[in-house]
Amino acid sequence: MVLNLILVASLLALLYAGCLAFYILRQDPGNKKMQEIADAIAQGAKAYLLRQNTTIAVVTIVLAGIIWYLLGMTTALTFVLGAFLSAVAGFIGMMISVKANVRTAQAANKGLREAMDLGFKGGTVTGMAVVGLGLLGISLLFGVYNDPKAIIGFGFGASLISLFARVGGGIYTKGADVGADLVGKVEKGIPEDDPRNPAVIADNVGDNVGDCAGMAADLFESYSVTLIAAMLLGLSIVGSMPNAVIYPMALGGVAILASILGTFVVRTDDKNKIWSALNRGILVTALLSAVGFYFVTVLLMGSMAFFYAALTGLAVTVAIGQIVEYYTSADKKPTQDVSEASTTGSGTNIIMGLAVGMESTLLPVLVICAGIFASFYFAGVYGIAVAAMAMLAMTGIVVSVDSFGPITDNAGGIAEMSNLPEKVRENTDALDAVGNTTKAVTKGFAIGGAALAALSLFVAYSEEVGLTIINILDHRVVIGLFIGGVLPFVFSSMTMRAVGRAAKLIVEEVRRQYREIKGIMERKAKPDYARCVDISTKAAINELIVPGLIAVLSPLAVGLLLGPAALGGMLAGAIITGLLMAIMMTTGGATWDNAKKYIEKGAYGGKGSEAHKAAVVGDTVGDPFKDTAGPALNPLIKVVNTIALLAAGLILTYGLF
Amino acid sequence: MVLNLILVASLLALLYAGCLAFYILRQDPGNKKMQEIADAIAQGAKAYLLRQNTTIAVVTIVLAGIIWYLLGMTTALTFVLGAFLSAVAGFIGMMISVKANVRTAQAANKGLREAMDLGFKGGTVTGMAVVGLGLLGISLLFGVYNDPKAIIGFGFGASLISLFARVGGGIYTKGADVGADLVGKVEKGIPEDDPRNPAVIADNVGDNVGDCAGMAADLFESYSVTLIAAMLLGLSIVGSMPNAVIYPMALGGVAILASILGTFVVRTDDKNKIWSALNRGILVTALLSAVGFYFVTVLLMGSMAFFYAALTGLAVTVAIGQIVEYYTSADKKPTQDVSEASTTGSGTNIIMGLAVGMESTLLPVLVICAGIFASFYFAGVYGIAVAAMAMLAMTGIVVSVDSFGPITDNAGGIAEMSNLPEKVRENTDALDAVGNTTKAVTKGFAIGGAALAALSLFVAYSEEVGLTIINILDHRVVIGLFIGGVLPFVFSSMTMRAVGRAAKLIVEEVRRQYREIKGIMERKAKPDYARCVDISTKAAINELIVPGLIAVLSPLAVGLLLGPAALGGMLAGAIITGLLMAIMMTTGGATWDNAKKYIEKGAYGGKGSEAHKAAVVGDTVGDPFKDTAGPALNPLIKVVNTIALLAAGLILTYGLF
Repeated sequence: MVLNLILVASLLALLYAGCLAFYILRQDPGNKKMQEIADAIAQGAKAYLLRQNTTIAVVTIVLAGIIWYLLGMTTALTFVLGAFLSAVAGFIGMMISVKANVRTAQAANKGLREAMDLGFKGGTVTGMAVVGLGLLGISLLFGVYNDPKAIIGFGFGASLISLFARVGGGIYTKGADVGADLVGKVEKGIPEDDPRNPAVIADNVGDNVGDCAGMAADLFESYSVTLIAAMLLGLSIVGSMPNAVIYPMALGGVAILASILGTFVVRTDDKNKIWSALNRGILVTALLSAVGFYFVTVLLMGSMAFFYAALTGLAVTVAIGQIVEYYTSADKKPTQDVSEASTTGSGTNIIMGLAVGMESTLLPVLVICAGIFASFYFAGVYGIAVAAMAMLAMTGIVVSVDSFGPITDNAGGIAEMSNLPEKVRENTDALDAVGNTTKAVTKGFAIGGAALAALSLFVAYSEEVGLTIINILDHRVVIGLFIGGVLPFVFSSMTMRAVGRAAKLIVEEVRRQYREIKGIMERKAKPDYARCVDISTKAAINELIVPGLIAVLSPLAVGLLLGPAALGGMLAGAIITGLLMAIMMTTGGATWDNAKKYIEKGAYGGKGSEAHKAAVVGDTVGDPFKDTAGPALNPLIKVVNTIALLAAGLILTYGLF
Repeated sequence: MVLNLILVASLLALLYAGCLAFYILRQDPGNKKMQEIADAIAQGAKAYLLRQNTTIAVVTIVLAGIIWYLLGMTTALTFVLGAFLSAVAGFIGMMISVKANVRTAQAANKGLREAMDLGFKGGTVTGMAVVGLGLLGISLLFGVYNDPKAIIGFGFGASLISLFARVGGGIYTKGADVGADLVGKVEKGIPEDDPRNPAVIADNVGDNVGDCAGMAADLFESYSVTLIAAMLLGLSIVGSMPNAVIYPMALGGVAILASILGTFVVRTDDKNKIWSALNRGILVTALLSAVGFYFVTVLLMGSMAFFYAALTGLAVTVAIGQIVEYYTSADKKPTQDVSEASTTGSGTNIIMGLAVGMESTLLPVLVICAGIFASFYFAGVYGIAVAAMAMLAMTGIVVSVDSFGPITDNAGGIAEMSNLPEKVRENTDALDAVGNTTKAVTKGFAIGGAALAALSLFVAYSEEVGLTIINILDHRVVIGLFIGGVLPFVFSSMTMRAVGRAAKLIVEEVRRQYREIKGIMERKAKPDYARCVDISTKAAINELIVPGLIAVLSPLAVGLLLGPAALGGMLAGAIITGLLMAIMMTTGGATWDNAKKYIEKGAYGGKGSEAHKAAVVGDTVGDPFKDTAGPALNPLIKVVNTIALLAAGLILTYGLF
């Protein structure tokens, strides 16, 4: 009965997404020129997804075989399903985004309200697809096997896609962006989104690949693995609380209903209130979820302790959002400090940006610590998992707000490329400007969510290997902590270097086209957009192989060679430095970006001043920080934990210790 | 008997230092102009030390009172002695450095060999003072109390000075350096070390304050606390190994003799072999120490297991040196990658430098892990402490090599300011150029040493609070890990911002002097050097108050509010991220610096090219990384552990858990 209601909630999310998609597709896609451009972006996005999903399919089949052999057929099957549903969610999100972008540009003709409405509806399709498919898959599998242990494979499937989408997508989006800028803006002096830039489509595709598909896969993973971990931990108290396994799914179901209602309050005519409209959607969803959680807790658990734990999760979500907003908003001191530091050159801009990034780790960590303390106080280890699930139950609305960003970003690009009237660009610019804040806030959510998801997995892992103690005074655990701690540093180094290499390939290709295709700059010939898309795609897929292998193999190596306790140490180490580095890089990156925008609005001499030049350098550094290296740490810390959980039995059987 | 021999070894170090100092002071201090400049630097250095030591004296007295009240008279007394001896070592080092610098400049008239000899002798005075006073203090106190527990206060005294000297010194040196450059080089276009720059003396004082006094205090602390921790851990096996408490001191004594002999092989005529001459000194010391360790182990312990553990420590020292050299040398790929990235602008230079810095954490961490694994394998937890002590027993030669750097740096400055012949400058430049490598390598040693020292303290702490288990699955330990992990990020943020503020004060003062004192640029009037020194000094002391309080109070707060296990988690968390961040920042900083120097030698267009401009930005960012924020983490991770060890009893008595 409860399970049926949960299934209904997940189907409602998908139904709502379907209705919105249908609505969007019926809107006016604008004139021929606009459609052409949108088509090119859509083609590029499809090309990327096709290649990525082909690679993923191969990897999935190989891994499924290995899993089948080592861990049995059920895990292999659920693994494939997890990977498949995550890929579907990403595919739906991307495909609707590239349809919504041109229609949003067209709607911006009518007004801000119309454009915002359409852009947000587009984002909501992705948001609902993520939570709908996640909850559907897990609740169906639970219905079939009636055992959360059987579903661990689903989480690993989601992890795999997330690794691909976040790491590959991150490299793609910044490789194309930096490459396009280096030749277009710097060498040729043409503006952003100029159709004469051969990499312009690749750049626009990148927005979707990184912020839409990447974020969707990341949160699909966090949502799924947190749900699974919470259900696993529910097993241990199922004696006294018979609904402890179903309860986390019920929280997810309730939050879906709250998210659907929450999307209705997101609208405004006032371009200064765009963020507050989006924020209202998040807050209303949180409030409605809290009310729903109360009734679900009364019905299923009969003890308010679990309700308080869930409330803790919601509070963490809201608090992290406020903190990230403070650190990245152009109206607040940290960002203005970075703007001011730009007046003495790019060196001081970078130092200040790094200092702000490092400082910005403090409050989120304290909030997470307070959340852990409170939720444990209310309901023990299971309480921590419930808090994590309550936080991630908000994924639907958060992804909606986030995916809104690339759609409006693209809409602005299309408006620019097809020479739409000034008014249109003003509307899309107003929407796009909020995009930086939404991206930063949702990234904060994604990081916090990833950390809590990984912690839940970590606890589930220890139960699975039968450890009640992982002792830091054991030298092997210390070694594990060090190895886990160094992982995010090495991973970030690799992804940042990969962006550089990918950008270089784009630079070379763009230069080649200018050299070989005569008349591009005079608008007499069309550049070969598809080739740039293809190069970025290949580079992204190639570059993720080594980091991907490290993420998958390092927990196995540590577990087999140093034992399950050392692996426990490694998982904890990776979570800690991963969380810190991810916050530092994503917040720092957004701060640099907004510090530049603050100067562009006229501070310290405005556009073209020395301060602006310095701020541009900071933004260049911030780009791979916030869009590649930082977000790539989310799947990293979850993947190592998922692998550990999945391979627990193997490590106990075949390990040296 | 053994204790007497150890005392003799420590006195030998001091005697050797005394002889060298006497020899240096008898050398020709050059012409009047040179002496004037050297005098200004010496005055500045004294002024800094006076103010710092006054502040330290006040803090020491207050803390001694608190310690007396809370922990008894013995601890208060040993605390004062530790602080005093560390301050004396720093004072001797600074004072001899500012005498040796001008004599080295004068010796450079005769030739490279003479200059190197004198510069290295000057460095050796500091090196021998550090190990001599450290071993003397601890062995004397052990002779008096016959109980390592009574000596913990000595370690905290050393920690306090180290915190002041590293944090304050780091802020001083970079504040003065950046401030001097921003106005002198950038605004006025005058070269480095130009006497018309009012901040030039402050800058030269800074070299001594940071690299000489700061490093000396840092390693005095590591040496002392590692020795104390090893002796404490020796207590637990003293039943089967009666000499386990004395053995670590004996290792220190043997290594002192080896270091004295090692200094004799450091000489060369060939300017391309300066680093190999210094390196030879380190390697010979390591070899002789190994031989000595063998006999000491046979005599005192009778089991080769401890010898192998000690060898592990030496191997870690040598390996870390090689790794750091690889990552920072201009001849190797990482630095050349950063140079190449400069060709596409300062943004890519920064990204690549950060990527190299992050990557450079991997191998040192693996080496330390291997060291932990091997030394534990040989001799258990005590073996880890023995390995750490064997590593830090090399402090004498390492500080000698390190302090050589600021002396030759100063000698170059004096040669420049007093218009000595080209030949002199060539010789000092050749010596100074090696300084970057020696600084990077010794910083690697200092970081690795700090990590191992902190780990030893951590284990000693757990024994002191009676914990045999610190369980990461306990939610309070997880919270501790997070809080400890975030500490180095916050600390680094604060110290980097402090450099910015200190530099700003210098910039304002230098501008004021140019405005108000007419004729400075025409060499008709002398700038007011002392005021710049004073401003930097005040700024440095003021800026270290908040980070210092955080370092001292945070372990107490966590221990009292969340319990001893949570504090254990915090200590481990701080060690892990502290080690990683410190390596990232110091290596990254040195790489940027050498990447710039590589371009200055002619690569990618050489001096004045666009690539060079980009590389200068990287160097600007690298400066506070490698000279302030990075090194400041060493005392941080040791101080939190020392405080925890010291306050163990209080936490057990008054804590909430």
